[in-house]
Amino acid sequence: MKSKNEIIGKTTQNRWYAGSVFIKPNRKSEFKQLDGADIKFFEQVVGKSHVLQSESDLESLNEDWMGKYRGNSKVAVRPKTTEEVSKLLAYCNEHRIAVVPQGGNTGLVGGSVPVHDELILSMSRMNEIRSFDSVSGVLVADAGSILHNVDEYLMERDHIFPLDLGAKGSCHIGGNVSTNAGGIRFLRYGSLHGNVLGLEVVLANGEILNALSTLRKDNTGYDVKQLFIGSEGSLGVITAVSVLCPPRPKSVNVVFLAVSSFEKCQQIMTAAKQQLGEILSAYEFLDDLSFQMVLDVHKDRVRNPLPSQASTPFYVLFETHGSNQDHDKSKVDSFLEYLVESGLIEDGVVSQDESQAKSLWFIRESVPESINKTGKVYKYDISIPVAKMYDIVLDIRERLAKVHPDARVSGYGHMGDSNLHLNICEPAYTSETLNIVEPYVYEWTSSVGGSISAEHGIGVMKPNHLHYSKSPVAIEVMKGLKRSLDPNGILNPYKTVPL
Amino acid sequence: MKSKNEIIGKTTQNRWYAGSVFIKPNRKSEFKQLDGADIKFFEQVVGKSHVLQSESDLESLNEDWMGKYRGNSKVAVRPKTTEEVSKLLAYCNEHRIAVVPQGGNTGLVGGSVPVHDELILSMSRMNEIRSFDSVSGVLVADAGSILHNVDEYLMERDHIFPLDLGAKGSCHIGGNVSTNAGGIRFLRYGSLHGNVLGLEVVLANGEILNALSTLRKDNTGYDVKQLFIGSEGSLGVITAVSVLCPPRPKSVNVVFLAVSSFEKCQQIMTAAKQQLGEILSAYEFLDDLSFQMVLDVHKDRVRNPLPSQASTPFYVLFETHGSNQDHDKSKVDSFLEYLVESGLIEDGVVSQDESQAKSLWFIRESVPESINKTGKVYKYDISIPVAKMYDIVLDIRERLAKVHPDARVSGYGHMGDSNLHLNICEPAYTSETLNIVEPYVYEWTSSVGGSISAEHGIGVMKPNHLHYSKSPVAIEVMKGLKRSLDPNGILNPYKTVPL
Repeated sequence: MKSKNEIIGKTTQNRWYAGSVFIKPNRKSEFKQLDGADIKFFEQVVGKSHVLQSESDLESLNEDWMGKYRGNSKVAVRPKTTEEVSKLLAYCNEHRIAVVPQGGNTGLVGGSVPVHDELILSMSRMNEIRSFDSVSGVLVADAGSILHNVDEYLMERDHIFPLDLGAKGSCHIGGNVSTNAGGIRFLRYGSLHGNVLGLEVVLANGEILNALSTLRKDNTGYDVKQLFIGSEGSLGVITAVSVLCPPRPKSVNVVFLAVSSFEKCQQIMTAAKQQLGEILSAYEFLDDLSFQMVLDVHKDRVRNPLPSQASTPFYVLFETHGSNQDHDKSKVDSFLEYLVESGLIEDGVVSQDESQAKSLWFIRESVPESINKTGKVYKYDISIPVAKMYDIVLDIRERLAKVHPDARVSGYGHMGDSNLHLNICEPAYTSETLNIVEPYVYEWTSSVGGSISAEHGIGVMKPNHLHYSKSPVAIEVMKGLKRSLDPNGILNPYKTVPL
Repeated sequence: MKSKNEIIGKTTQNRWYAGSVFIKPNRKSEFKQLDGADIKFFEQVVGKSHVLQSESDLESLNEDWMGKYRGNSKVAVRPKTTEEVSKLLAYCNEHRIAVVPQGGNTGLVGGSVPVHDELILSMSRMNEIRSFDSVSGVLVADAGSILHNVDEYLMERDHIFPLDLGAKGSCHIGGNVSTNAGGIRFLRYGSLHGNVLGLEVVLANGEILNALSTLRKDNTGYDVKQLFIGSEGSLGVITAVSVLCPPRPKSVNVVFLAVSSFEKCQQIMTAAKQQLGEILSAYEFLDDLSFQMVLDVHKDRVRNPLPSQASTPFYVLFETHGSNQDHDKSKVDSFLEYLVESGLIEDGVVSQDESQAKSLWFIRESVPESINKTGKVYKYDISIPVAKMYDIVLDIRERLAKVHPDARVSGYGHMGDSNLHLNICEPAYTSETLNIVEPYVYEWTSSVGGSISAEHGIGVMKPNHLHYSKSPVAIEVMKGLKRSLDPNGILNPYKTVPL
């Protein structure tokens, strides 16, 4: 057995970049290093201007937005069509060239950046909407379409995308599906496993799997598209998506509440589910530290919506989506009366128009960015029973306080889905903090039957922690699927599946 | 190339039973025929009284409820625990014993009956509810639990199962998940791919896959449970299910309408989606022939809810589920006023209480049974764009009229999900009708981009018709999954995957 020092000694050569405290897996020697002939082939397929090789072009594609993971890829290709993706993958599979599919590169677990010198397959040019049927609400669009653009397109046609999240201005819908993104509408509209009706996928060997059904019900054999939802591009590259889009709600209400305890946040949620019923579309919370970071970072843009209120430990944002303004208003008003009478809230504000609704949402949605601008962030995205959700924040805060009193440990997230975002923000990443927090957070989560990744996925951050949430048999099934669909392991290597 | 006569001559030896016009695939010689040692092992695992061998015990297990498919199994086992299922499958896999998992045996494509002498693995004794959390609405129950019992259990706890269908008194929730059943609540609560949170599955080699998560969000690697939803027991045997159950609606309205044309049925649906919005929970239709068969067969129980109305070509049943009786009533009343004023309906009735609501639903739900009692039925379950949905009924009616003027061709189904049930009812099954209808129905469906199985599945009826709805690459992926998870092919052979 190796001593701890030996292991650390060995892995220091494998940091993501100078100064990084995070370890990257060794490069697999079976993968080919790109040469001139490969570049020539890529240029033939996608055109010379879409094979990127300059350092400046590659810089942002090699690194994730948190500055936590940085690969060393020398080449990125930007195909425009499914056929081009097919040709590229067939070639890469034949020549054992490792490939990292990349959407908007907004992920939080290093899934969309190269680990070493993988070819970057950027989906950014595949961004056309292929069709939309306003009767059924079924949209078919290229994988590289930006979520915000798709949602705007749908809004103009009285529909919405069933998913919404803070990164919508950059993330691609193909990336959303590949990572099974959750976001803020999940409570109401549910999982992409339910909303995605079909996919077009290029398999590792270049074959095009056309499973782009637009039918709401289709029980013709195995639902193979499900395999690619949430598999982070490791089983195939999604090139187009068919999604069932809900009608645009005629009535939207957003409410922001100041709450004195986490227990009360829970009580309000239970009451909201009962009293608002089918119109409740989101139930989010943030703690005071998260809120203060937003106010600090966005001084110029954000004003405290509850100015009369001294800061409270927690804030709740909930939203309703409905078809009848009078009925919804009546439900929301009765509910707020109940909250005041029962002493569950300190203060609250209801949006009076769309612009106010957006301002309130901006507070919640800019939490991750605000924390990121405050320092270096360790992000954990866990599902745990709501009753225990905030305990882990308090626990980590206490553990770190002794060693790093300047650590800012905050909690916020999709309370309605039992999904906590635990963030630790410090001036710099340090091994000391990392060792205090990991694998402690995973052990803690596992001990309460939670999931170590609620919606962010596994990426390169957590394959070897998967066992905290998945049984050995489940991991074996995963490995079997990977072998079956990508026998040469060229697709997004080092990620998702334990090494 | 063989002549048609040669093929027919050969296959007459392979009818399901004397007089049947349906062809069964040849028995695979690699499967072991059961002997005394096998029986002894089964008896050791499940106890002597749960190894059934008498003809009377096996009769109903060997045949489907339509009397269309009949196997020749000599043994059925009834395990009580997951561990027993595990021991049985490990043994069967080792000895190449083919197995047909059987739930409530209410399927319509022969998926739950043996084709030849497969061991019947009856799930009927695994019927315990394991847990229910009234805060999250998450139910965990054995696969053999009867849907009706589960729904009753949930109703007492102010929740409902996200799925409902006519066979609920017999079908098992494990069978529902294995076949990805759709049913009448699909429009509102969506697919089981979205509602099932976790599964416990015994794999072909006897290994127990514990993926019985109760978390709403869990993105830890591939969502392996999805593989088993809708794969008809051919990749593993589901032993327990974790499901997200919606709250029991405080307000339910059921409306039954007489409509003079199919076009108006569509117009009413579009208006219902707009005006009833989030409370619309079901939108069903039946044609007059379906309605008359219900009235005939259930003379003693069913009265025409619209007695003042001479028969109309179509009837629509829609339902609302909501949290506020006043708001829902107001929405439904305004909608009905609109329907009357715009001349879209001939007549209509709104349920005044739960018992009336049940009576109206009984009409729709007893259509399949009523047709079945009227004669022998060819059933087709297809997804096609709503605008073309009834054309196939008229088309088949015309084609058959010349040859079999006594054929009763009817259409009904889940219009809100674009899901038609096309039924042809005759005094006896005949090759002549079969040849007129198949593969014509599949070709027709394929030509309009539909699915040849919306919710009934593939079973033994349609594996070789799968290509009408699935691409060759998709079928290859299916075969790869089957090889990967059931290398000896012992699980539900001859079904789901093309031979």
